Amino acid sequence: MTTITRLLPRTPRANAGPLAPTEGATALPVIDGVRLSAVEAGVRYSGRLDVMLAEICAGASIAGVFTKSSTRSAPVLMCQEHLAKFDGSAGTAAILVNSGNSNAFTGKNGFDATQTLAERTAAALGCPATHVFPASTGVIGEPLPHERITAKLDELVSTLSPDAGADAAAAIMTTDTYVKGAFCTVDLGAEVTISGFAKGSGMIAPDMATMLVYIFTDAEIAQPVLQDILSEHNQRTFNAITVDGDTSTSDSLVIAATGRAGNDRIESRDDPRAEQFADALHAVMLDLAHQVVRDGEGATKFVAVNVTGAASDTSAHKVGLSIANSPLVKTAIAGEDPNWGRIVMAIGKSGEPADRDALTIRFGHMLVAENGWRARDYREEDAAALMKQPEIEINVDMGIGGGQATVWTCDLTHDYISINADYRS
Amino acid sequence: MTTITRLLPRTPRANAGPLAPTEGATALPVIDGVRLSAVEAGVRYSGRLDVMLAEICAGASIAGVFTKSSTRSAPVLMCQEHLAKFDGSAGTAAILVNSGNSNAFTGKNGFDATQTLAERTAAALGCPATHVFPASTGVIGEPLPHERITAKLDELVSTLSPDAGADAAAAIMTTDTYVKGAFCTVDLGAEVTISGFAKGSGMIAPDMATMLVYIFTDAEIAQPVLQDILSEHNQRTFNAITVDGDTSTSDSLVIAATGRAGNDRIESRDDPRAEQFADALHAVMLDLAHQVVRDGEGATKFVAVNVTGAASDTSAHKVGLSIANSPLVKTAIAGEDPNWGRIVMAIGKSGEPADRDALTIRFGHMLVAENGWRARDYREEDAAALMKQPEIEINVDMGIGGGQATVWTCDLTHDYISINADYRS
Repeated sequence: MTTITRLLPRTPRANAGPLAPTEGATALPVIDGVRLSAVEAGVRYSGRLDVMLAEICAGASIAGVFTKSSTRSAPVLMCQEHLAKFDGSAGTAAILVNSGNSNAFTGKNGFDATQTLAERTAAALGCPATHVFPASTGVIGEPLPHERITAKLDELVSTLSPDAGADAAAAIMTTDTYVKGAFCTVDLGAEVTISGFAKGSGMIAPDMATMLVYIFTDAEIAQPVLQDILSEHNQRTFNAITVDGDTSTSDSLVIAATGRAGNDRIESRDDPRAEQFADALHAVMLDLAHQVVRDGEGATKFVAVNVTGAASDTSAHKVGLSIANSPLVKTAIAGEDPNWGRIVMAIGKSGEPADRDALTIRFGHMLVAENGWRARDYREEDAAALMKQPEIEINVDMGIGGGQATVWTCDLTHDYISINADYRS
Repeated sequence: MTTITRLLPRTPRANAGPLAPTEGATALPVIDGVRLSAVEAGVRYSGRLDVMLAEICAGASIAGVFTKSSTRSAPVLMCQEHLAKFDGSAGTAAILVNSGNSNAFTGKNGFDATQTLAERTAAALGCPATHVFPASTGVIGEPLPHERITAKLDELVSTLSPDAGADAAAAIMTTDTYVKGAFCTVDLGAEVTISGFAKGSGMIAPDMATMLVYIFTDAEIAQPVLQDILSEHNQRTFNAITVDGDTSTSDSLVIAATGRAGNDRIESRDDPRAEQFADALHAVMLDLAHQVVRDGEGATKFVAVNVTGAASDTSAHKVGLSIANSPLVKTAIAGEDPNWGRIVMAIGKSGEPADRDALTIRFGHMLVAENGWRARDYREEDAAALMKQPEIEINVDMGIGGGQATVWTCDLTHDYISINADYRS
């Protein structure tokens, strides 16, 4: 069992959501081979950190997963291109992220702006431009004022420091009500540290709330193994959370492994240390994913939907998402209403194999429905008391197979409407 | 062009939504061969009509379409079974609908209750039990107090009348803020009347807001032709609307054609009068579908999403639904915010073929985005003025093919949350 430590803000925000972490550390650990910095560039707002730079030593392995949107942004397309031909031995690498403007759907100008930023960053750091991994998050369709960022490149480079993780995590925030970081150590012969930070509050709001995740580790691990582990565990962590079912044009997750920990290099998934590393990485990813859901726009409840007994794992995942994305289920949870009929509805509409009479539904351990009807001993007042908790567990057994999956979500509240309907008006 | 007349309530409700019809008739036309009645049975609430009965003359053709939910209700399953073997020449037929309780997910007791209702109705009318088409709408998972309905069967039968359409339409309402009816005439050699009524306010709320539609016509038309026309036009009317993307366990649409108009019997889709009839039926179905969207829970805006230039009609339909179901698009519309970036996002997440640089987006005639960027002459203040209208048109040309579809929806407002989060608490 991996012990995860969460990042806490040095100064808690007054508007932090009710599900914000209350225990943790106010700094992220140093990862040998990684230096970070953050500045106020005024991309859109003034008086806050809004650009962060990470410098990753030569020889690192880098892997990533990105949004599948067909309208993805210029920075995402560049990251995918750079990742496909990345060779850590060719020099240092960099991650450059701005908040306030997503540079998405900005046509050729947007590509040019991203290209300029990559070239100028590479020049400032003395690395190949193809080693720069950019990201932008914020309003869609507005020209990125990239000169405000390049004007700060010298400051970003000169202030690079091994222990600026918390500032970097703060610089990428948009509608987030708290900073999101998580780290752990794992013994792979040598002690290896894995440390990550994330932003995201709606699953996406193109104005403001794309999900970005950066994870750093000193593990020595071959790139193909790192990519394989990342892709596999992304499916059960970041791909298993939903706030509103909307998918960003900019969602990005990048991991860099510097290889400085001194462990024997992991060259294959068959190496038992690969699974130890994967387990620890999974724990960091899952914790960050949960922090994103807990900061879901307007969220007051953290909801786990466990689906078992489905036709397949994929089918269980789809049933879970159908429940977790249902506005009627999510509004019932917001209202602390144990309206299990809406769960039946959401299972039915998923299009996945289901047998009404084989279904079992529980809230936590409480049996709610089975054999095609409400359970004999179900008492709505007990269920209503359970719904008052800030963490809700919906357990659905489909009763037809061995497939299982868990999906996490939050409730749908008046504040979600306020944040998203009233923001620009 | 078919002229549609809408049904207006004799006494307007104080809580009628802002998009309720303001012009129309306070009665539905008589359809020769159809008699209707409605009573207060107190299924769940007292002091309102909550059960309706329709008697359809022997010799009628009956067709229907039903929810595809895998957890559909006992009445839906019975309707599908009865429809499959229906033979109008064997006697009169009946439709029996209650509001207040959906009899869905009620196990064997639910099936028994539906069977009892069908048998008792058949006995009271002197028709085969397999000629009864039941529906129930309201709370899920509660035993249907069917004895309250059977206690009223004598009254329902003795008050059957050709001109009780408006009462029947009122009896099936749940969270609807206004009664929904529409009718027209079409000259098929003889004058044929088509008259329907509907209920539905959320696309579904298992508590209250399933969609039910009943249409009556005196046209003489063979059952297979009627079913074929109904299924085809359902795709572009009721299957092209969405309030919240949730699908009822009880959605039902039944049409009965009595054959009393005196037109030459339509035996095939190749008969040109089949298309005349289809056009008129389409107009009634579309109008009822629009009335359902206009009464969407909390709706303040009626939104048409037209998608052209897609890879196929099916692809256009999916892109349209992705836009129409996006909480971020719907909250932006609620906030009168011309946030076209969210439309780009919703196109991107649809999973359908798209080329970012070939996309064209318009609000009504106003060009918003093209060539991968905001249009040169786009002015946000003009778009913001346009968003203040109660009816919004989003026109998306995918620029890659000939597929097209239109989807209708409403905005997502604080009132949707209030209706669905606070209802049972």
